[in-house]
Amino acid sequence: MGLFSKPIKSLDDLFVHTLQDIYYAEQQITKNLPTMAEKATNSELKGAFQQHLTETQGHVKRLDQVFQMLGTEAKGVDCQAMDGILAEAKEIISDCGDKDVCDAAMLSAAQAVEHYEMTRYGSLIAYARQLGRQDCAQVLEQTLAEEKATDQKLTRIAESRVNRQAA
Amino acid sequence: MGLFSKPIKSLDDLFVHTLQDIYYAEQQITKNLPTMAEKATNSELKGAFQQHLTETQGHVKRLDQVFQMLGTEAKGVDCQAMDGILAEAKEIISDCGDKDVCDAAMLSAAQAVEHYEMTRYGSLIAYARQLGRQDCAQVLEQTLAEEKATDQKLTRIAESRVNRQAA
Repeated sequence: MGLFSKPIKSLDDLFVHTLQDIYYAEQQITKNLPTMAEKATNSELKGAFQQHLTETQGHVKRLDQVFQMLGTEAKGVDCQAMDGILAEAKEIISDCGDKDVCDAAMLSAAQAVEHYEMTRYGSLIAYARQLGRQDCAQVLEQTLAEEKATDQKLTRIAESRVNRQAA
Repeated sequence: MGLFSKPIKSLDDLFVHTLQDIYYAEQQITKNLPTMAEKATNSELKGAFQQHLTETQGHVKRLDQVFQMLGTEAKGVDCQAMDGILAEAKEIISDCGDKDVCDAAMLSAAQAVEHYEMTRYGSLIAYARQLGRQDCAQVLEQTLAEEKATDQKLTRIAESRVNRQAA
């Protein structure tokens, strides 16, 4: 939270703050996925990144919907966690001296992104339920299911293809 | 990877780099958990942080063991992801204007830490297996199991106690 931001005094405040955190994070992901899709050599990995870009655009729309349900302006707050995860991803990709190893590093970076999202959506759904907002929880659950499915797909691609090619 | 670091040309290099990344991350966690345990109001949450500190010290020792098995010096590399996750955790904790809401925020921050570790250990185990290092994979699997158990315990504490108190 930046200077002049509202202090977090209630679970409602924490819910909105966490929504703003993941709203920023999802937007950063939509900016980074096209480069990762372009750089990927393995066609399955490239396809997974492209598909996840479309899904991520949908996640931003779902967050817009949740903000609207709460009667709150849709806006992001700086998410140092996602900034750090993406900065580390860029660094390791630029340090890779082999295209197959770069695929393995990008895949692992993408899984770090997915896990961050999974934990935040998990918290958001728990907050929504505690606050009696089943309507919001249901929307957020759809995104969480997609994040989990993407993570599982990436594990499958890593174990069946990408890590093997990198070895 | 910093200036003058070795480029990552093989899956072996990526394995060692990822070990160095999580070695740094685990050490940062051991520095931050005592403050979180001290700040926690809910006794179950405080106990979970204290127990996880002991476990995390064990995770560092297991990483020492894996570095030794590989005949490589045990050292960390800056992990911007963990730095970002912990910086965000500190910020939200300092922004909380209520002790029960602070517990909920700390619990969520701890789950973000756990998820980062889970994804990195998952990648490390997959790399170790691909490289024929079942011995390393077995050591890392013990830590992954503990990280997953901690995450599940935190979810239980959130849903049964901490989020309820914060609402």
